[in-house]
Amino acid sequence: MPSRTVPSVRLILVAMGAFLFVLFSAPIHASAADDPGDENEITDFVLENGLQVVVIPDRRAPVVTHMLWYKVGSADEQPGKSGIAHFFEHLMFKGTKNHKPGEFSARVAEIGGQENAFTSYDYTAYYQQVTPEALETMMHFEADRMRNLVLTDEVIEPERNVVIEERASRVETAPDSLLSEEIDATLYQNHPYGIPVIGWMHEIKKLNRADAIEFYNRYYVPNNAVLVVAGDVDAETVRDLAEKTYGKIPRGPDMEPRIRPQEPEQNTRRLVTLEDPRVGVPKFSKSWVVPSYESAEPGEAEALDLLSEILGGGVHSRLYRKLVVEEGIAASVGAYFQGTAIDDSSFTVYGAPRGEATLEEVEKATNAEIARIAADGVSEEELEMAKTRFVRSMIFARDSQSGMARIYGSTLATGGSVEDVREWPERIRAVTVEQIRNAAATYLEDSRSVTGHLLPKSEEPT
Amino acid sequence: MPSRTVPSVRLILVAMGAFLFVLFSAPIHASAADDPGDENEITDFVLENGLQVVVIPDRRAPVVTHMLWYKVGSADEQPGKSGIAHFFEHLMFKGTKNHKPGEFSARVAEIGGQENAFTSYDYTAYYQQVTPEALETMMHFEADRMRNLVLTDEVIEPERNVVIEERASRVETAPDSLLSEEIDATLYQNHPYGIPVIGWMHEIKKLNRADAIEFYNRYYVPNNAVLVVAGDVDAETVRDLAEKTYGKIPRGPDMEPRIRPQEPEQNTRRLVTLEDPRVGVPKFSKSWVVPSYESAEPGEAEALDLLSEILGGGVHSRLYRKLVVEEGIAASVGAYFQGTAIDDSSFTVYGAPRGEATLEEVEKATNAEIARIAADGVSEEELEMAKTRFVRSMIFARDSQSGMARIYGSTLATGGSVEDVREWPERIRAVTVEQIRNAAATYLEDSRSVTGHLLPKSEEPT
Repeated sequence: MPSRTVPSVRLILVAMGAFLFVLFSAPIHASAADDPGDENEITDFVLENGLQVVVIPDRRAPVVTHMLWYKVGSADEQPGKSGIAHFFEHLMFKGTKNHKPGEFSARVAEIGGQENAFTSYDYTAYYQQVTPEALETMMHFEADRMRNLVLTDEVIEPERNVVIEERASRVETAPDSLLSEEIDATLYQNHPYGIPVIGWMHEIKKLNRADAIEFYNRYYVPNNAVLVVAGDVDAETVRDLAEKTYGKIPRGPDMEPRIRPQEPEQNTRRLVTLEDPRVGVPKFSKSWVVPSYESAEPGEAEALDLLSEILGGGVHSRLYRKLVVEEGIAASVGAYFQGTAIDDSSFTVYGAPRGEATLEEVEKATNAEIARIAADGVSEEELEMAKTRFVRSMIFARDSQSGMARIYGSTLATGGSVEDVREWPERIRAVTVEQIRNAAATYLEDSRSVTGHLLPKSEEPT
Repeated sequence: MPSRTVPSVRLILVAMGAFLFVLFSAPIHASAADDPGDENEITDFVLENGLQVVVIPDRRAPVVTHMLWYKVGSADEQPGKSGIAHFFEHLMFKGTKNHKPGEFSARVAEIGGQENAFTSYDYTAYYQQVTPEALETMMHFEADRMRNLVLTDEVIEPERNVVIEERASRVETAPDSLLSEEIDATLYQNHPYGIPVIGWMHEIKKLNRADAIEFYNRYYVPNNAVLVVAGDVDAETVRDLAEKTYGKIPRGPDMEPRIRPQEPEQNTRRLVTLEDPRVGVPKFSKSWVVPSYESAEPGEAEALDLLSEILGGGVHSRLYRKLVVEEGIAASVGAYFQGTAIDDSSFTVYGAPRGEATLEEVEKATNAEIARIAADGVSEEELEMAKTRFVRSMIFARDSQSGMARIYGSTLATGGSVEDVREWPERIRAVTVEQIRNAAATYLEDSRSVTGHLLPKSEEPT
């Protein structure tokens, strides 16, 4: 069985942010847009049953990545049923009417392939990486489990214990995970992004067969899925195979719009503190609710992406140069923006002190860098260099077939289009220094931030 | 039109806490329990359509309090529809098929009566205080608006603007209200008690006719209501009148159990800060999620009630004696427990510095008093005196007919019984010093508390 993780959406999206730039900046897409006949053109179409399909040719090696994305994540869960989306991801590795439990995974292993799955706030995805000859088999298995899972108590009860154990070992015993959960619960005062993807323990424990069946029937239908195939295949082959496999599944009921409770205006500065004897070095993070690519006004999310790059996107960033290199007060520092989300999402900076420096000094210096951008903006050169850093990493894009598939899948699963992906590099290039300053001044206000402190356990009670 | 407020449930329940003691300690109830034939006996029965009725005789004056409680409050709202319970309370003062808008209120005024209504997390109530002769008319009007409201856009649109204005003037422009909302949103990480009763502004603005009608049909039915009549009437008269009025309304569909998402285990210490130029003196509050009378193990809620009394229940409390009288560092200090709630609720201490003292000093001294009780408990005499203070205020109970009605109404609307109300004084008397210490040690841990700071706006940006 593959390891099925609940990756922090932050980490996924940070990783994806890198790919995102990379992919979007690749000349292949510009040329594809210019020349529809190009054999490397990215193609998208919709089957009669509503399944969206995206084909991304990548002919460097005889490898194909087959990813099926469902437009459902933890933020779509009913109140009190947290964890069902992730729990259901586990159940998808059980048996179907046509295949025994473990048969799909065994087949992938047998042909030397790789597989995995992940659940996030806005989507759930399953993928295999195999040789092109095995694609049809993968599509057969994946289509089969879209509707034919056997969901008996014998399947569900033991798997729930697996998830409970997963939460116990990854969250309950990890101070940084516990803190991260409560930071999110504090940051989001109304939106379900405040609820952990894996679910609250007391709610996981109550998930049952009826919940699983209701969830399956509601969300696991072709008209709620996006198939992304990247690799050494052409669009017509994928279309034929998709029609032979997924195309046989009847369309489900029309999906309801994904409307979640939105955040109110926030007016307070919040601090969430966890002290634990297992913590060695103190750390802080500071987050704000900001627009996502889907919820932002044009250009805002692009500006936030570049702001995170300029502020804390690596060794060339302001925070790194100032706090790590110049002042030597921070052991680590950085920033990230969760842009790929349906609703307003978050922007975060973080850091940890080095040597004799205190957490407070690192926080102060971080706040000062943010304030500086909000007041004075950035220079044209600095912005161009940030854009260029994106462009330079382009070369790595072609090396990540699954990265490309992820960009398209996550964008389409969060309400974006293939066109959005295509146009993204131009929109990034269009960001102005004024937009960067505005993003910092508008969204990174201290008076509506949520700071997290992970501290060694102090001896004296407070 | 009466002033229809959204009283902070804290204030209501604090007020009710006082009544609660008072009422429960009144010998009248003990004697009623002992002597079922007593003309002052509190009677309860259920009409065929499911309406619960409680009659509380109080013959001191020719006055009767007529209260109708619906078992629905803001915590029962659908996600994204915050404010509908309170908005609906407004709509109940509009016209029905049988009576023009304002006719009911005009009638109450005409006969020299008083009326009001309030919405809280777990219930919504409407009441009038009139002469006994007018009781039937009140029951007629109240029963009429249970099912016959005219809910057109002409009624709903302008009233929504009234509520928007109410929120704008009472919350948005009041730093302490804004802070209080965000403290609650931080304290409750999963439960809808974290959402303000009046609703988030952006959600109030979207409430519409369809929402109102759905809410009305779902919750405003006799089998979801409790009628409480206190005053110069006997049970048989009330029963006859209730059958003539409310009894004509058909039973609604069976109500679903009031199951809301529960709180996860909390692991962090949180601080919510609002700085505002309108704030003169700084203040703090510190809250914890604790069991309510409905969710607690036997004796726990009673212990929390007495703990709040001992710690901060007035001029005899530890906090007051120490911080205000002895040390002179606090201008105000206190504690309250929101015991009357369906789900886990909150316990809060608060204070403000006096003279040269700082907020930090007041907080530290408050924390020290809590720690002292958690470590050393309280003395038998102190506990007895706290119980006695409850008993002494008994005499005021008879003076508050509406207070008595509120106790019964709120208890029954949150899942309690008339029996619970009757037995409450004995359960309070049974609380031990060990239970008080346990309550403080178990629930008032610093590491899972939420502190609020209301501060004057500092000049320097942080």
